[in-house]
Amino acid sequence: MKIHLIACVAVAAHTVGTLAQAQSSVTLFGIVDASVESIKSGGGSVTRVQSGGTYQSRFGLRGTEDLGGGNTAFFNLENRFGVDDGSMVQGLLFGGRSVIGLAGGWGLLALGREYIPIYQVKTGSTPFVFMNYSSAQVMMRGGASKSDNALRYDSRTWAGASMSLMYSMGEENPVNPQAGRHAGVAAHYAFGKSWVGGGWNRVAVRSAAVDTTNEYVIGARTELGITTVYGNVWRLSTDNRTSPDAVVNLWMAGASAPVSRAGTLMATYARRSSLRPRANDGDDATQILLGYEHALSKRTTLYTQYSRVNNRGRSNLTLSGFANVGAGSAEVSDPRAFQVGMRHTF
Amino acid sequence: MKIHLIACVAVAAHTVGTLAQAQSSVTLFGIVDASVESIKSGGGSVTRVQSGGTYQSRFGLRGTEDLGGGNTAFFNLENRFGVDDGSMVQGLLFGGRSVIGLAGGWGLLALGREYIPIYQVKTGSTPFVFMNYSSAQVMMRGGASKSDNALRYDSRTWAGASMSLMYSMGEENPVNPQAGRHAGVAAHYAFGKSWVGGGWNRVAVRSAAVDTTNEYVIGARTELGITTVYGNVWRLSTDNRTSPDAVVNLWMAGASAPVSRAGTLMATYARRSSLRPRANDGDDATQILLGYEHALSKRTTLYTQYSRVNNRGRSNLTLSGFANVGAGSAEVSDPRAFQVGMRHTF
Amino acid sequence: MKIHLIACVAVAAHTVGTLAQAQSSVTLFGIVDASVESIKSGGGSVTRVQSGGTYQSRFGLRGTEDLGGGNTAFFNLENRFGVDDGSMVQGLLFGGRSVIGLAGGWGLLALGREYIPIYQVKTGSTPFVFMNYSSAQVMMRGGASKSDNALRYDSRTWAGASMSLMYSMGEENPVNPQAGRHAGVAAHYAFGKSWVGGGWNRVAVRSAAVDTTNEYVIGARTELGITTVYGNVWRLSTDNRTSPDAVVNLWMAGASAPVSRAGTLMATYARRSSLRPRANDGDDATQILLGYEHALSKRTTLYTQYSRVNNRGRSNLTLSGFANVGAGSAEVSDPRAFQVGMRHTF
Repeated sequence: MKIHLIACVAVAAHTVGTLAQAQSSVTLFGIVDASVESIKSGGGSVTRVQSGGTYQSRFGLRGTEDLGGGNTAFFNLENRFGVDDGSMVQGLLFGGRSVIGLAGGWGLLALGREYIPIYQVKTGSTPFVFMNYSSAQVMMRGGASKSDNALRYDSRTWAGASMSLMYSMGEENPVNPQAGRHAGVAAHYAFGKSWVGGGWNRVAVRSAAVDTTNEYVIGARTELGITTVYGNVWRLSTDNRTSPDAVVNLWMAGASAPVSRAGTLMATYARRSSLRPRANDGDDATQILLGYEHALSKRTTLYTQYSRVNNRGRSNLTLSGFANVGAGSAEVSDPRAFQVGMRHTF
Repeated sequence: MKIHLIACVAVAAHTVGTLAQAQSSVTLFGIVDASVESIKSGGGSVTRVQSGGTYQSRFGLRGTEDLGGGNTAFFNLENRFGVDDGSMVQGLLFGGRSVIGLAGGWGLLALGREYIPIYQVKTGSTPFVFMNYSSAQVMMRGGASKSDNALRYDSRTWAGASMSLMYSMGEENPVNPQAGRHAGVAAHYAFGKSWVGGGWNRVAVRSAAVDTTNEYVIGARTELGITTVYGNVWRLSTDNRTSPDAVVNLWMAGASAPVSRAGTLMATYARRSSLRPRANDGDDATQILLGYEHALSKRTTLYTQYSRVNNRGRSNLTLSGFANVGAGSAEVSDPRAFQVGMRHTF
Repeated sequence: MKIHLIACVAVAAHTVGTLAQAQSSVTLFGIVDASVESIKSGGGSVTRVQSGGTYQSRFGLRGTEDLGGGNTAFFNLENRFGVDDGSMVQGLLFGGRSVIGLAGGWGLLALGREYIPIYQVKTGSTPFVFMNYSSAQVMMRGGASKSDNALRYDSRTWAGASMSLMYSMGEENPVNPQAGRHAGVAAHYAFGKSWVGGGWNRVAVRSAAVDTTNEYVIGARTELGITTVYGNVWRLSTDNRTSPDAVVNLWMAGASAPVSRAGTLMATYARRSSLRPRANDGDDATQILLGYEHALSKRTTLYTQYSRVNNRGRSNLTLSGFANVGAGSAEVSDPRAFQVGMRHTF
């Protein structure tokens, strides 16, 4: 449930007008998501209560104000917290999207901590969005989702097509002011029951080991009867300072379909391959992820997920951050994870 | 005042229904509590502004959703802060009860950062609940109140009787995954104007010094005319790794009574004794605590409290965390504390 | 927009009464402020996205309860955050005014983290309030704005005159309990279209280098036609432990005027002089600050500001915290800053 506080304001005005006259609103919203998760990885295993088994627990405030002439001012302040221990994720009060901006027929301009343009390509091309077990999180940990100090422009939609541009200052590091700078672009096209998107994001890492990363993503989904089919292809290219540059590829295919009035099945298969340097040949991995969601109501959902990663060569991908037993040796373990959880949105 | 945001939502629906139809609500609530406190302990003394002289200052969001069939989904996100300096208590955003769960005729299941079952036994058997000067806080600092990563089940109430079970994962320490694990149980019985409760809680501390602690609590209260009489008995047993195991006992007796239309007097006397090891014989303490609360309104209360602890032997209990002057010597000081404060709930 | 949650409560009571009967309210309010800022200081320069170009981004809860007899209980919990990176300013949840108190015909008493009395003198005597580029922030960094653990009394207003007293405990440092103690007083007088105020604030710093600071401020403003003219004079006196005591003076003059239906121009000129010790003679500075604000609506404003500081002698004042290139040498650079931003209040 989104609490449209606008209604409160409108009440006072009830004797002199109608709800339609209200031109401003502040909405309090959130997600609470907890699960019990069991991970087995070689000789090691753990069973634990986790926050954000699917979506990170959060609360937020968002507001809009009609400026007239089709223009709107808006803000979005979104927190991330751990419901299992009450902590703030990353020590940030608003670790989610934290922006202020203007929107109108010309598009939308946002300033602050903002999603990179390809985030929407990543999340729109899989049934698992950006969930904890999704291939985006498990197979492409090097990928980015948000950037501080960002300016982002989203075009309006023309006949199903739209685009986004972002540039962020890398100001957080006073010694190396370029470190952390992002630049990105994405384009989307929706037609009939289908959608395709693609884009690029560059991060000036400027660390001792890494100079720059470049991510390229193309994704799509389409509805075939009651089934929605998804797919994406990623490339993550890392310009290293001393070691040779590295390039990895990922492709993912998936589907989701309702299996009852309240139940939805989802599945993806993903494969990550090392293209460069040659020394990493064969350090590949595959992931299978199965999920089922059961809606108890509009706002409350029970879910379960199972995932297995097959690490080959020296690939050492983990599930939900649980370290692989035997990591570092040529043969690392193949982690398996299972979780049952509950998610409530308000 | 609890802000039932449900009302806001209902407004929009006002033209098509009634408030009774609303099936979801989110409530914003809180307590702001500040006091001026003066503590004297041997040669040392301090006068200071404190937050949470009685209840820790907090704000929170809680919500429920009717799932039909008598079942409800709920969440509770509760912060703790210092109104004296604006800080978050323990560095946690939701340092209070941070849970999501389901409730119905079968009971209640909660997942997250949750009170241990005996917390309700501890707080129901004294007029001072879990306040800063309460015997629970002053005399039994080794006791627990909440646990992260918990699963708690509360039964429904049968003819006044109910019970609670809790198990929490001890996952926070990767080196020693059992450290922090809690297990607990409590039972309650309310009859006429009386109530009794009892329970047990075990914490796998797994530190270098301490292996496990076990807490046992039995408490009761009853109304005798306008006076409510309280009492409880605790045992805290500590399994040490190298030093001999330790057992301490506490008993507390107290009463509260209205003295005017807005005023309530409260008093407790508590005695702590060391049972084991023998070397600690005589390291005992007693505490007297007097309180008066004056309700300015339904939501605003002025309060004053006085407490004195008599430390015997090597007992070194403090009031409000203010170090005893002369601590470490055989004769430590007997701290006295006095506070005047104001508490507002919303 | 201030969300008066009182309205929500009143809805439920709508069938039995009117809005006027409601005697309690909780208000959710806030400011989101972001800018792009460019600073040049000698050979160094930076362009960056900043939070709080004018007012620090924040959200807050404030509430009042009518206690009858003309008395009110109130609280104010005010956060400060960075919209550019989602952080909490100073690591505090309520880094703004965090207080609980009582108000009535006899005045107002607040307890908690509170503004010092001369804060209102400082902010009332300049068009730039306490903004990031204001002379208060740039030229008098040694000045204080709030104090933890404070007790503040504000008198009621008698024929335009009022006064404030504050005392705060310096309890945060257990080794030196006096460190951080504040004492302050201010008086205000409003007559016709004019206002004057003055006051004093003393901080027991008790650091290795500094014993005590004393700040004295006198300020005024008056409306001359459509122009408002401002001025203030400050003295900051520092009692050092080993180095000789230091005294600096500041005077500031400014004006603001509407230039269109939505636009306002503001300007100040400030001069800081070192009075003592003699060794600092000539370590002076001047600052010019120009601002323009354009209201897009009642709650959304675009702004731009330009400032330049001339450092003389060994004066080393910075703009927006950006270090001067060449600092430490006899000739430090003269920083210039320019920003364009957007501010939204709710």
